[in-house]
Amino acid sequence: MEDCLLLDAGSGGRASQRLISQCFFRHFANPLLERMDDAALLTDIHGPLAMSTDSYTVTPLIFPGGSIGSLAVHGTVNDVAMLGARPRYLSCAFILEEGLSLETLERITADMAAAAREAGVHIVTGDTKVVPRGACDKIFINTTGIGEVFANPVPSGHSARPGDAVLVSGAMGDHGLTVMGSREGLSFLTDVASDSAPLNHMIEDILQSAEEVHVLRDPTRGGLATTLNEIAEQSQVGILLEETAIPVHEAVRNGCSFLGLDPLYLANEGKCICIVPEDKAEAALEAMRRSPYGKEATRVGTVTEGKAQVSLQTRIGGRRLLGMLEGAQLPRIC
Amino acid sequence: MEDCLLLDAGSGGRASQRLISQCFFRHFANPLLERMDDAALLTDIHGPLAMSTDSYTVTPLIFPGGSIGSLAVHGTVNDVAMLGARPRYLSCAFILEEGLSLETLERITADMAAAAREAGVHIVTGDTKVVPRGACDKIFINTTGIGEVFANPVPSGHSARPGDAVLVSGAMGDHGLTVMGSREGLSFLTDVASDSAPLNHMIEDILQSAEEVHVLRDPTRGGLATTLNEIAEQSQVGILLEETAIPVHEAVRNGCSFLGLDPLYLANEGKCICIVPEDKAEAALEAMRRSPYGKEATRVGTVTEGKAQVSLQTRIGGRRLLGMLEGAQLPRIC
Repeated sequence: MEDCLLLDAGSGGRASQRLISQCFFRHFANPLLERMDDAALLTDIHGPLAMSTDSYTVTPLIFPGGSIGSLAVHGTVNDVAMLGARPRYLSCAFILEEGLSLETLERITADMAAAAREAGVHIVTGDTKVVPRGACDKIFINTTGIGEVFANPVPSGHSARPGDAVLVSGAMGDHGLTVMGSREGLSFLTDVASDSAPLNHMIEDILQSAEEVHVLRDPTRGGLATTLNEIAEQSQVGILLEETAIPVHEAVRNGCSFLGLDPLYLANEGKCICIVPEDKAEAALEAMRRSPYGKEATRVGTVTEGKAQVSLQTRIGGRRLLGMLEGAQLPRIC
Repeated sequence: MEDCLLLDAGSGGRASQRLISQCFFRHFANPLLERMDDAALLTDIHGPLAMSTDSYTVTPLIFPGGSIGSLAVHGTVNDVAMLGARPRYLSCAFILEEGLSLETLERITADMAAAAREAGVHIVTGDTKVVPRGACDKIFINTTGIGEVFANPVPSGHSARPGDAVLVSGAMGDHGLTVMGSREGLSFLTDVASDSAPLNHMIEDILQSAEEVHVLRDPTRGGLATTLNEIAEQSQVGILLEETAIPVHEAVRNGCSFLGLDPLYLANEGKCICIVPEDKAEAALEAMRRSPYGKEATRVGTVTEGKAQVSLQTRIGGRRLLGMLEGAQLPRIC
C-alpha cells in the first residue's frame, strides 16, 4: 500500500478494490461483508427491530481512551441498545480525504473491528468515498446499526412516570472534556480519558434484572442536563436531581471549573440514564455495577409531577432550573 | 430560520431541535421518526433482510435531473432492491458545513422526501452534524436502507451462468456525464440529464415476471464495464457484449467523444443490469419496459464459459477486452 490515500481509491475500480480488500476486509473479515453484492443479505435477524444512525466527525481522530473508530462503533451500538435491543449488524461508510495517511486509516479500522468484536456485532456492508484535499477534514465515518428488540415494554423517553428513580451508570463529562483537552493541547488535563464503551451487554443485564425499565437514553451531545430535559418534555414530567449525588470525576470537576464548563452539559459516550419504578432501582443499579462500565452507577434523582423541567437541588440546599443546552459548547465532539 | 446554518445547529441542544423540527420533520414527517428516541422502533419488518449504505458527496449539489437529495434516496433504495428486496426504511445522516444556505438545505431535504415517497420508503431515524467552515464541502448525506428480501433464490453477482442473457434497463452514462458537465460548466452538454431514479418497483416486476433472475446489479461508480467485470470475477464466467446493442444516448455519445470519455465506464444512477436464463430474457425485458425507468431496456450480451473477463464485439466486427476501471475517471460523482 502507498503511504497516503489517493483519489483513485474512491473510483469504484481496481484501486477501490485494493483498499477494500487490503484494509477493510482484513480487519472486518466476515462472510456477509465479503459477498460484495450491492447489499448484505441478513437471514437470521427477527423483528421488531431497532435502527439508528450516526455520522462521526470527531477531531482529533485519536484521543485518550479511544479514536473515531471505536467511537463510531460504540455510539451506534449504544443507541440501538437504548431501545431495549440486542445490536446485531452495522453498516460502515467512510468519507476520506485525499492524502490521508494509510497508517492512520489502518489504526482506525482496527479500532472499529476490535470495538465490534467486543460488542458482538458484525460490520456487514460498507461504502468508501474519497474526496479531494480540502473537501473534508481527514475522515468521517457513518455507522448505522440494527438490532433485535427484546424488551417489553420498549423503553422510551416518553415513558418516565412521577415517582420513578433516575439512575446513571457512572461519572459525567469524561468524553467531552477529553476531546476538548486533546484538541486544544491542554496539558493540565492529564488525568482524563474518554469513557467511550459498548453498553449493550450491561443494558441487557439491566433489562433482565429490573424487569420494568421506563427510559434508557445515553447522554451524548448536550450531556446529562440536555438529555433529561428531552425526557421531561417527552414524558411531560418534572425531574429533580441531587447535585451531590451526580458522579463527576475529580479531574473532570477541576478541568471544568478551570475552563468555565459545566460537566452536566458535556458529552458522554459510555454512560446511560436509566429511569425505573422506585422498587426496581436497586436491581437496576446492581446490574449496572456488575458491568465493567457501570462500577460507579448511582441514583441521581427522582421523577416528579408537574411542569416539564429539570431542577437541581444544589450542594448548598437551594434549587435551580437546569435548562437545555442552547448552542454549542464544543463542536465535533462525536 | 436564519439564512445560513450556524455551528450551534449541531450541538444537540435547542438549536439542533429547531433545525430538526423546522426542516427535517416537516419534510420527512412520519410517526416513527418523530418519536425522537435514540433509535427507531420498527415492528412490521420481517427477515430475511437486505441492508445497504452509501455516503453521497456529489458536487455540484444540484444538477440536471436531480440533486444530492434525490440521489441519496435513489442510490440506497436501488442497492437494497438489487438483492431482490422490497426497500422499507432509510436512515439519513447529514454532515453540514457551517454557513450552508438554509434554502439549499431545504431544497435538498424536499428532494429526499419526494424521492422517498415515490419509492415507498420511510426515513425513520437520522443524525445531523455541523462542522466548521472548511471541514467539509457544503453537505454530505449518508443513507442506509433495509428491506425485506422476497426473491428466492436471491440474485447475486456470484450467480451468473454460461448461456445467460445480459440485459440492461436503459442507456448508459447519463448520470456521470451530466455531473461532469454541470460541474465544469460545459455549455455544449445541454441535452443530458442524470438518470437518477428509484428502481424498486421495476425490480419487483422483473422478479415476478421472469421468476428466475441470477444477477441484479446497478452499474454506478465504474459504470457498466466495471460492474460486469466484478460479476465475471464473482461468478467465474466470461461475458460477451455486442457494442452495437448497448444503448447510449446521442448527446452522451457526442459529449463522451468530445471529452475522450467512454460511456461504458460512466456512472448510472437509475439503471440495472439483469442476468437471466436465456428463456426468461423476454419476460424480464417486458417487465422493464412497463416501467417508466425501463423504456429503453434491451439485451446487450451473453454469459460465456471460460476466463473471467468481459469482451466487446465491436461495431467493426473485432473483439476487445473491456477491463475494469483502474483509477478515477471523475471523483465525487455520487
